[in-house]
Amino acid sequence: MKNIILNLVEQGKYSEARKRIISLNIVDIAQMLEELEQQKLLITFRILPKDLAAGVFTHMPSELQRCIIESITDKEVKSILDELFLDDTIDFLEEMPANVVKRILRNTNEETRRLINQFLNYPKDSAGSLMTIEYVDLRKGMTVEQAIKRIKETGIDKETIDTCYVIDNNRILEGAISIRKLILSDESTLLKDIMDTGVIFINTHDDQEDVANLFKKYNYLVIPVVDNERRLVGIVTIDDVLEVIDQEATEDLQKMAAIQPSEKEYLKTSALQLARHRLPWLLILMISATFTGGIIKRFENALQSVMVLASFIPMLMDTGGNAGSQSSTLIIRGLALGDMKPGDIFKVLKKELLVSGIVGITLSAVNFVRIYYIEKTDLLVSVTVFFTLFFTVVLAKIVGGVLPIIAKKLKLDPAIMAGPLITTIVDAVALIIYFTTATWLLGI
Amino acid sequence: MKNIILNLVEQGKYSEARKRIISLNIVDIAQMLEELEQQKLLITFRILPKDLAAGVFTHMPSELQRCIIESITDKEVKSILDELFLDDTIDFLEEMPANVVKRILRNTNEETRRLINQFLNYPKDSAGSLMTIEYVDLRKGMTVEQAIKRIKETGIDKETIDTCYVIDNNRILEGAISIRKLILSDESTLLKDIMDTGVIFINTHDDQEDVANLFKKYNYLVIPVVDNERRLVGIVTIDDVLEVIDQEATEDLQKMAAIQPSEKEYLKTSALQLARHRLPWLLILMISATFTGGIIKRFENALQSVMVLASFIPMLMDTGGNAGSQSSTLIIRGLALGDMKPGDIFKVLKKELLVSGIVGITLSAVNFVRIYYIEKTDLLVSVTVFFTLFFTVVLAKIVGGVLPIIAKKLKLDPAIMAGPLITTIVDAVALIIYFTTATWLLGI
Repeated sequence: MKNIILNLVEQGKYSEARKRIISLNIVDIAQMLEELEQQKLLITFRILPKDLAAGVFTHMPSELQRCIIESITDKEVKSILDELFLDDTIDFLEEMPANVVKRILRNTNEETRRLINQFLNYPKDSAGSLMTIEYVDLRKGMTVEQAIKRIKETGIDKETIDTCYVIDNNRILEGAISIRKLILSDESTLLKDIMDTGVIFINTHDDQEDVANLFKKYNYLVIPVVDNERRLVGIVTIDDVLEVIDQEATEDLQKMAAIQPSEKEYLKTSALQLARHRLPWLLILMISATFTGGIIKRFENALQSVMVLASFIPMLMDTGGNAGSQSSTLIIRGLALGDMKPGDIFKVLKKELLVSGIVGITLSAVNFVRIYYIEKTDLLVSVTVFFTLFFTVVLAKIVGGVLPIIAKKLKLDPAIMAGPLITTIVDAVALIIYFTTATWLLGI
Repeated sequence: MKNIILNLVEQGKYSEARKRIISLNIVDIAQMLEELEQQKLLITFRILPKDLAAGVFTHMPSELQRCIIESITDKEVKSILDELFLDDTIDFLEEMPANVVKRILRNTNEETRRLINQFLNYPKDSAGSLMTIEYVDLRKGMTVEQAIKRIKETGIDKETIDTCYVIDNNRILEGAISIRKLILSDESTLLKDIMDTGVIFINTHDDQEDVANLFKKYNYLVIPVVDNERRLVGIVTIDDVLEVIDQEATEDLQKMAAIQPSEKEYLKTSALQLARHRLPWLLILMISATFTGGIIKRFENALQSVMVLASFIPMLMDTGGNAGSQSSTLIIRGLALGDMKPGDIFKVLKKELLVSGIVGITLSAVNFVRIYYIEKTDLLVSVTVFFTLFFTVVLAKIVGGVLPIIAKKLKLDPAIMAGPLITTIVDAVALIIYFTTATWLLGI
């Protein structure tokens, strides 16, 4: 189907193409348009029916949105804006350069302009920047019949009518009622008798991660957003939260891999930008690894007299690093998903002690068998490696388990405390244990 | 509020407690019950109104569910089961031991038993195991009035009535219609004239990750599930997908940290189980690190004559490992979110070459200044470190960027190819470059 349409467009048979396009889903149309060259894209976009055009526009990447906005008339801009939900307008404006934003604002009425400015002022990643204002508001004195009438009158422009909100004359949130309950209730019932008064709500300034956690906890599809006076100002719908969940997981992953987090897709980020996100931590970690080098230098004489010690350094460092990042990954993820709280630190400590004991003794024993019995390494060297490996694993798991929790307690980001930083600490301590044991056991 | 209720329960004032409990959200009630000791928990659970009890039960951890099921009468079991949605029943049964499952099946009617057995047979992590059968089905010949009447009659037991599905006499899926459209349409309109015929659907055997991606792509709240004959068999609702998204991200994170993935929460997993998830990869990586040790052994003489070379090994290995896992993390995440496809391999290669060039030259230069000018290291050694660091970074980024894509192409899991495995490869090659350059430049 897609290829047929693309062919029709290539051949300039636009009205033929239009007929087929309108049977597609807006997301698929947007994806298809991306494959066209600019001029054909513009023509195809302009022949779309008005109501489809806005939906397709919402699902386009921001470069294409910009290219379209810059090529169409003010009247066309206005007609797209009229069809867009406010949250989609904001998402789009946030990616546009100042001159485009100005042109958009020029083409909206005063009320919308005021709203847009208000929304653009909400902190990034806050509930305010996620929410939309297209919700249905009802009054508790209404009957079910009146409520359904109001929904029929005003619902057509709303992002969702699945849950409607009951407010008082000062717009204070009083309750919620689902369309399902309205439909299944008797027409003469008063809303105040059937509305849900224990509504869970969020504040405009709440962090989007907390918003996502509320959705997960309560299985809601919509959550109302209120200001500091508990006045209803908007709603957040679950589909916007899916993106937040992915974003937050990606951000944690990037931090754990020592990258400065960025929301931009890899393929759409320039090499220079990518390099800029990666360099700072690599530099910091490279310089802190010098410390480890310093330890080796300090024990140069010991190393020189028993050269075989050098060959176990990579294994000790790697195993310590891996053991530590296993623990830190589980803890960081657990904290992010709310499965554990900073108060669980002693439970974690106890568990990591046990786990590291089991893991450490197994690894050390296997390694001892390998290097002493199979590779015929000197007994005392083998014993040194045995002890160092065991204590390195225990240490790595405790540092890996506890450091993210301490970070959380200090209101720092646990993800930053992950992998590479822990590896550097563990490396240094492992080498100190290694050479101290060696000098003592081997008498060097 | 929670503390007041817990106090009332402690004092045995159950009817007082009940009054307050019923004003709470079921999720909060479930969480509160977790804090009670077993006997009080059971009493409190049994005084809950029937319709609340099932909801609260769904949100309890499986140990508590089991404890409740084992302590209540068959009649109570039956009344809970009657209120549960099928997908919640399945989730709960999947965690129960065989004797509990048997007791449950004994307390259901034949039809439900057949359905439960069918659902338990869907592959874990498939759309079939995610879906529920509580949807509203309509016929295209119905008028809006008839449809709303049917929803009023049958909708009370359904998981959602927001989207209803139109099927033919053989239950083949023909279209979908939202409750919103029904409410906003004229009562005499025929469904076939307003239904959406381009419904996106999934097959019972589709993987849950693909299901989640469809929800993200199309912003739907519900997606219908069909069998191989396109007969409607169930629906998946978006709230179940939130969990899937978290689960998939967690699984990738665990694999990248060299842990065997597990869905069980950290604090609820025993130390022995945790150790079992962590040991296999640690063992494999420890043994493969031996290879790196072998390289050092092979160059023991070179090392012995220029001992300072040893002190740069940790820095080279760490920086290589970090540079590689930065790239692999971005690529693995991009593949998981569908931002890039295996076909993008050459774009990635080109980008990583550029990025690694910039990053490599910066790191090497900074390090050269530090070791040659500040630490007064020998010039030829400094040059050796300069070259090795540069090529290690380039190599690490290319391996890190390309290996996950190759894994995906070979239908292997890209996440397994991440961090630790790449580190081991990069370590070995870095040491070979290091010692080869050193022997050549320093003439040792």
